[in-house]
Order: sequence, then structure tokens, then C-alpha cells
Amino acid sequence: MNVAGTPRRTIWVESDGWSVGIIDQTRLPHGFVTLRLTDVGEAAHAISAMLVRGAPLIGATAAYGVCLALRQDASDAALDRAYETLVKTRPTAINLRWALDAMRAHLAPLKPADRVQAAYAKAKAIADEDVAINRAIGEHGLGLIRAAAKRRPGETINVLTHCNAGWLATVDWGTATAPIYLAHEAGIKVHVWVDETRPRNQGASLTAWELNNHGVPHTVIVDNTGGHLMQHGQVDLCFVGTDRTTAQGDVCNKIGTYLKALAAKDNGVPFYVCLPSPSIDWTINDGMKEVPIEQRAGDEVSRITGRTDDGRIETVTITPQGSPVANYAFDVTPARLVTGLVTERGICAASRDGLLGLFPERRPNR
Amino acid sequence: MNVAGTPRRTIWVESDGWSVGIIDQTRLPHGFVTLRLTDVGEAAHAISAMLVRGAPLIGATAAYGVCLALRQDASDAALDRAYETLVKTRPTAINLRWALDAMRAHLAPLKPADRVQAAYAKAKAIADEDVAINRAIGEHGLGLIRAAAKRRPGETINVLTHCNAGWLATVDWGTATAPIYLAHEAGIKVHVWVDETRPRNQGASLTAWELNNHGVPHTVIVDNTGGHLMQHGQVDLCFVGTDRTTAQGDVCNKIGTYLKALAAKDNGVPFYVCLPSPSIDWTINDGMKEVPIEQRAGDEVSRITGRTDDGRIETVTITPQGSPVANYAFDVTPARLVTGLVTERGICAASRDGLLGLFPERRPNR
Repeated sequence: MNVAGTPRRTIWVESDGWSVGIIDQTRLPHGFVTLRLTDVGEAAHAISAMLVRGAPLIGATAAYGVCLALRQDASDAALDRAYETLVKTRPTAINLRWALDAMRAHLAPLKPADRVQAAYAKAKAIADEDVAINRAIGEHGLGLIRAAAKRRPGETINVLTHCNAGWLATVDWGTATAPIYLAHEAGIKVHVWVDETRPRNQGASLTAWELNNHGVPHTVIVDNTGGHLMQHGQVDLCFVGTDRTTAQGDVCNKIGTYLKALAAKDNGVPFYVCLPSPSIDWTINDGMKEVPIEQRAGDEVSRITGRTDDGRIETVTITPQGSPVANYAFDVTPARLVTGLVTERGICAASRDGLLGLFPERRPNR
Repeated sequence: MNVAGTPRRTIWVESDGWSVGIIDQTRLPHGFVTLRLTDVGEAAHAISAMLVRGAPLIGATAAYGVCLALRQDASDAALDRAYETLVKTRPTAINLRWALDAMRAHLAPLKPADRVQAAYAKAKAIADEDVAINRAIGEHGLGLIRAAAKRRPGETINVLTHCNAGWLATVDWGTATAPIYLAHEAGIKVHVWVDETRPRNQGASLTAWELNNHGVPHTVIVDNTGGHLMQHGQVDLCFVGTDRTTAQGDVCNKIGTYLKALAAKDNGVPFYVCLPSPSIDWTINDGMKEVPIEQRAGDEVSRITGRTDDGRIETVTITPQGSPVANYAFDVTPARLVTGLVTERGICAASRDGLLGLFPERRPNR
């Protein structure tokens, strides 16, 4: 989407033809800084330190990480080492393993001498496919916004979103934001309530930055506010993303998603999860029991980075000295709270039957 | 409670016998600074700028504000002016009007010459009554913690609390924290999940500071985390405070309380609201429709103050330039989500009948 009027993606091959450009998302929203990744270690660091984040972008970055590894050593052993290095960078995102499996399956049968070029082509295909998938998710989600706009002609449609499932979390368009960008471009009056999304503030620092750069009306709120807004009819639709959705439709997403889903249910607000099919984990069912929840460093809770009035970037501690903190990165929203899953193939119920209706090739053979 | 080993209250008459000491709570948790209020304007500012906050402490500060006003002019007109100045400082807290009504009812019949001394005596009585009320709330809530401890002998009882309904929000003990302090002093193993409580971070900056100073085990979490903890059996009880509870038991409290109550209901975790009876607004029933929700400055959302690594206090902006913010200060938790109301007279259902059972003098004459 647009940054200062220029269309951008979140990951690209630089003009040298091999190094990989990314946006350092830890510098947003106060600085727009791009970085050049030149080896697999840098790619792994970019993922684990969350210079890039969001399940689809993590997958694309891992794919390009394999390219960078093979440039230095295209042997079977190097391919395995790259896989192992990259797969460990984040424990929750299913796309990471999906992209690495796809790369290895494509490259392992090839002669080492052919692997580098094939790797770049495959990584580009993974990135392009993500863009196409998100655009398709956007078209399906746009139908939901159009329907809401038809019910209340001339009025603004208020969408609430949590965390950043925006174009910064993908290669382009975003998942939860794709319907919003398309609605905005179609001239529908849409306004977005942007959850701050503590810790890491990906809503306040990334989603708000995206929407602001693209000119989409929005308001930042603290994570505590969504329930109150829903109680008072100020939210028409919720759109969130997911890091991993199980085969029965349980949704693992940024911590706090579950609380918004509860509020949506309590107030009759439709709660949609926008997901590319690679984020579906067909191997597990019960999200509460089977999805491991990453615990991250307490610093993300106790410290916050921002811009001082004179333009410096400072990090401040907000908790008292001596008070412990805990930092659970994700939670699981049970399928029963999800109105629908918006995938690239259409919208379905958050259930095994719903998902298999759209993805019949996943139906177990009988 | 204790600050660096010394027992403290949140408001007191200084040794000069007339000026009023408070803790500047906006400086916590990084600095412990006390201030001296010398006129009604300073008292009003202390309330509106939230140097003092929490319904009971706001009431006590308003009462002492009347004392400071009458010292300068004890006329009927001055009493009315003090009332009007102070009642406007915060729109939501019911204790504010309650304390001012009590002061005026007590002072108006007196000769102006007798009013100053009577005002200080009445303000002291209001403060002392708050301490006694909170201690009684604590005893009743302690029974709930004892019962939980009996069900799981030897194990730690985990309590989740939102915002600061601690001794800093009252004159002493706190409301939601009184049971916790008493349990800790009784040797029960208790651990507190402290919601950060954006905006203003009263959990991370005040509740954590209190518990840390008093030696009560606790862990700070972001507001998004409580639902996940409840899903995984890591919360035994929720205790929160309230700024205003309606006659049918709807609870107005810091924004986000509603989301925690939804999660508690969804996971079978008891959700108790600790309240002194002056926070009951017997004149209204439907909290959703009848409680005005204060909207505060957007700065509280977009900017955060903390301590830099080299010890300076800095304020940083966390939202992008150009992104609007909204700041709703409270929400209303419907009575149906509240397990019980813990008052100074005992614990009752969050309903008209429950409340009237404990406060039969409020029953309308028939």
C-alpha cells in the first residue's frame, strides 16, 4: 500500500538481484527505515527480533532466508541447516513452517547448482501468492462491509481491529485490512477503531501508521475500550487476523483477541477472522489445548518506546522497580465466538465442516 | 498501608493544623512526592488533574477542599461556591457529590463563625469512615479468599484486579485490595495479577507500587492477558473496585472492567466488585443508559510517561503523527456478569434485591 504516496511491499529483492529489502517495523511509526538482509542469520534475526512480523510476512522472510543461505552453500546439509535455523525463530506462526516446507520440498530434489535460482523464484512465488490471497480475502470481506453499508445508507461503517493484520503483517494488502482498503477505495465511508494492542503496540504503531499513510479514517483506542464501544452500537464489524487457526476453527491471534470476541458475542457484533489458508493448521483441532502460547520477554510489558517532544526516540520503564511482569504473546479464541472465517476462497463458518466446505481437498479419504 | 516501611494514609491534615497533605499520584511509581493543598482551587485541581483519584479519595479530598474554602470565607455564598467548584471536577464519581452533600448538610445550618472547625471535624469523620468501611470490605472479601484457599490447601490463590482500587484510591486499605492485604497479613499465600490498565496505567503504576511496597506477591500483565489466564485456570478470583454502582447492581468502573467480567463469566471465575456503600447510586438503575461516561484528553492514550534508564522522567508519544485517538474513561459492567458485591455490610447479589437486603433503609416506603 502507499507510504508517503508511493506504493510499497514489505519485502523485496534489492536492485543487486540477491539481497533482500525489508522495512524495520520496530522503528515505526516514528521512523520509516528499510534494511538489507544479506545472509540467513540476518533473516532469522529479522524474524525473531520482530523487525518483520505477521504470519504471512514471516513466511515470506523465511523463504528469502533460505535463498540467502543457499547463495553461500547450496548443499543438502546447508538446506537442512537453514530450515532448522529459521523454523526456530518464532514458535507460534504456522506460516513459518509452511513456507519452509514448501521451499525444501521444491529445492531438495534439485541439483545444488540449480537451487539458488530456483529458491529466489519460489520465494517470489510465495510472496506473490500472499498478495493474491490477501486481495481475494479483501474482496470477500468487502462484501460484508457493503452489506453493512446497504443496511445504513449514507452512514459511516465502523470496523474494529486488534493488533496489526495489515499490509505490514503480510507482503501487501494485509488480511484484516484488505476489506477495509478495498472499501475505502470503493468510496464506502469506513472508519476503523484501532486497538493499541499492548504489549508492542502494533495497533497504535503499525495499523494506525498504515491507515494514516493510506488516508483511511481511523481512531486509536486502548485495548480496554472496544467492549464499551460495542455496548453503545459504535462497532458494526470486527475484523482480525490470526497467526494460526485450527482445523475446527479455533483462532490463535495476538493476546486480547479473545476478549474482543467475547464482547462482540455479548453485543451481537459480527466477529470475522481474515486468514490466508496457509495459516490453517489442519493437524490440530482444540486450540486451547494444542496451540503452544509463546511467552516473550517482560521488557515488552515494562518498557515502552516512543518519540519525545523534541524528536528523540526514548524507551521508558512504566512499572515500579521490583514488580515482576508476565508476557503471553497470544491467546486462543474458541470457534464458538467467531462469526465467520474470511479466506481467499470465500467466507465459511468457524468449524470443521465450514473449513472443509471451502477446502474439500483437506477432507480425509474414506 | 506501608511505604518504605512507614504506615501512610493518602490524605492528612499537616502539622500546621489546617493545610492538607496528599501524595502526588501522577509521580508514582517512579517518585514518591507529597504536596500541600492550601485553598479550594488547589483541591479542585488535585481532583481534576488526578493528583488524587479513586472515588473514596476524591470524596475525602473534596471534603477537605470545603474546609480550605471556608477558612478564607465561611459565608453561605462561599459554601455554595466551593460546592459548585468541587462538584464539577470529575463527572462520574458518585462519592464526590456524596461527600459534598454531606459537608453542606452538616455546615449550612451552622453560624459562619462555627463552620471552619466543624468542617475539619466532618472531613476527618468522612476520611475515618472510609478507612473503617474499607477494613470491613476487606474482612468480608477475606472470607472469599479463605474459602478458595481451603479448596486448594497449600496452593497459591491467584487474584486478578483491574485499575487501582487500592489504598491509593481510598484513604487507606483500598476496596479491591483490602481483602488481599488482609489475606497476606493472615499468612494466606496470595498472588495478584495486576492489569496494567491503559490509559494512565493505574495498575502498573499504582497497584503494583502499592503491593510491592507492602510485600505482596504480584505480576504485572497487559490488559489483554486476563482472558487467557482465566482460560487456563490461572485466576481464582477477580476483585475490582467501582466508581459508581447503580441500584440494580450495574457497575461503572475503569474502562476495560467489562471485558474482564465477560472473560470471568465465560470461564466460571468468580467476579466480585468491592464497594463502599457511598459509591452506590440509589437514584439510577440502568448503568448502560444512565451513567454518563467521561471522555478525557487524547494525550492520555497517545502519550506515556516513564523512567529512562538514566533515571529521567520522560513523556513519549506512541501513536503516529496525524492519527486521532479517543479516550473513554469508564465502562459499565452489567449486573448479570457480577458474582457479588462486597460491601462494608457484607456480600450480596448484584441486584436490587441483593442491595436492599444489605441496605434495607433504602427500601422505598410503601
